Amino acid sequence: MSIVVVGSVAYDSVETPYGTRERILGGSATYFSTSASNFTGVRLVAVVGRDFNEEDRNFLQGRGVGLEGLVVEEGETFHWKGRYEGDMNEAQTLDTRLNVFERFSPQLPQAYRSLPTLFLANIDPELQLQVLDQMERPQLTAMDTMNFWIEGKRDALLKLLPKIDVLLINDAEARSLAGESNTVRAARVIREQMGPKRVVVKRGEFGVMVCSPDGFFVAPAFPLETVVDPTGAGDTFAGGFIGSLDRDGTLDEASIRRAAVYGTVMASFTVEDFSLDRLKRLERSEIEGRYEAYLAATRI
Amino acid sequence: MSIVVVGSVAYDSVETPYGTRERILGGSATYFSTSASNFTGVRLVAVVGRDFNEEDRNFLQGRGVGLEGLVVEEGETFHWKGRYEGDMNEAQTLDTRLNVFERFSPQLPQAYRSLPTLFLANIDPELQLQVLDQMERPQLTAMDTMNFWIEGKRDALLKLLPKIDVLLINDAEARSLAGESNTVRAARVIREQMGPKRVVVKRGEFGVMVCSPDGFFVAPAFPLETVVDPTGAGDTFAGGFIGSLDRDGTLDEASIRRAAVYGTVMASFTVEDFSLDRLKRLERSEIEGRYEAYLAATRI
Repeated sequence: MSIVVVGSVAYDSVETPYGTRERILGGSATYFSTSASNFTGVRLVAVVGRDFNEEDRNFLQGRGVGLEGLVVEEGETFHWKGRYEGDMNEAQTLDTRLNVFERFSPQLPQAYRSLPTLFLANIDPELQLQVLDQMERPQLTAMDTMNFWIEGKRDALLKLLPKIDVLLINDAEARSLAGESNTVRAARVIREQMGPKRVVVKRGEFGVMVCSPDGFFVAPAFPLETVVDPTGAGDTFAGGFIGSLDRDGTLDEASIRRAAVYGTVMASFTVEDFSLDRLKRLERSEIEGRYEAYLAATRI
Repeated sequence: MSIVVVGSVAYDSVETPYGTRERILGGSATYFSTSASNFTGVRLVAVVGRDFNEEDRNFLQGRGVGLEGLVVEEGETFHWKGRYEGDMNEAQTLDTRLNVFERFSPQLPQAYRSLPTLFLANIDPELQLQVLDQMERPQLTAMDTMNFWIEGKRDALLKLLPKIDVLLINDAEARSLAGESNTVRAARVIREQMGPKRVVVKRGEFGVMVCSPDGFFVAPAFPLETVVDPTGAGDTFAGGFIGSLDRDGTLDEASIRRAAVYGTVMASFTVEDFSLDRLKRLERSEIEGRYEAYLAATRI
């Protein structure tokens, strides 16, 4: 099977209690692709500027990520600058330069349109709708979003959600979208009243909650003593989650739960170092090893 | 088997988004005893004032809670007034009147001193030490504490911790006690450097983490759509946890994990109504039913 992912490829400048890094590889589609490529084939659709490094392109290519849809435009690559402090549960944005990403109008290469799985990373829901329209008949459509769109493009978002199999969203965003102060109720309200078949609420260091037609699945995060840089954890989770689902080829409850654990495992690696550094040196055997360690740490 | 619990019996005035209640039954030892009495025998050691209701005494007696150690003194019962807002994860204390609790000097009735299990609810660690000294040879000693003692009575706390089998503590307190910003590391540092055999970190709506010699056990909370009043959730958890351990009579890893789930289940009932109202009308079959529902919601 194979996944098309549409999102951002970026350079990030990040400050955490563990250090500072300038212009390191980032972006939702980058984290997603790298993570998902451990499970299945991935085709990336994004835009970068002339400053995008050959080294970074080669890295993605080396993971087998299809780059036919990675457009290079005049100008600079999307740049995000942020800081994490204390318990590092929330990023403080210091600067956002959309650059070429501001005029992003994703066009799927012809060969991608018949692929079975689509992940719409966090971009303008109007663009997400346009991308979905370009797909022929996806078996699994998943998406992420954020407060900026929940507040500013609610109509487009509400038009999109009924077409979605899996909405991935963080807890504060879920509460905001549903207008509910309780996260569990927010997830159910979104699923029952806004149309996505399943809602996956990402809670950072507290794990995930999946609201399905059958009820709730709750799973803690992998207990980590050292979190160096949380950037990309959510997109890495999504890559493991959707990658595992695409590999399984089904959406039954057992696959959903296994996928949630793979997503959790992948995210736990990402945060152990800056940028994609930990994922770059990650062995398949480490993924399976931590999957087993996760089962051991949660088994009742 | 049987547990001695030493802590507070109080009247609380509570304001939550679901309403306001004045002078309702509360206190750490009250929640603990009521919860634990579903699993094993409980003897309560606490102090109340002349205003303590016959009805509340009868309720505890009706649960089979031993009240020989419940001393009535001249003056008023401990009174706490607090408010919860928004996601209700934190109580805002509006008023605390220690009243008779200020001169609390717990004396265990002779018959209690040979009991196998002791729970020291959140009181001055110097008093906790005095109580521990009165016990003959407990098989299981557990305790709770809070930031007020971590900051103000650190020496007494550090003297007490090596004598303890299970420290129950919330996440912010664990980080403060260990001087660590990461909760997982904080739990390990407390266990390895301060002496308690196991550290149970309570994370409210995000569940619990148990740090044992064998490693970590992490468990999410039961997904609840309605939280009416979080007061007493931590002590109710402790009651289910220690109650289940006392009933099992062992501290092996399987018992610890089962106990953590029973604690989680009991806490999930408490927060569904004000004061002990939900626990008062709780049937044993509901406990087992929710235990099974918890397994179903977390099974991978």
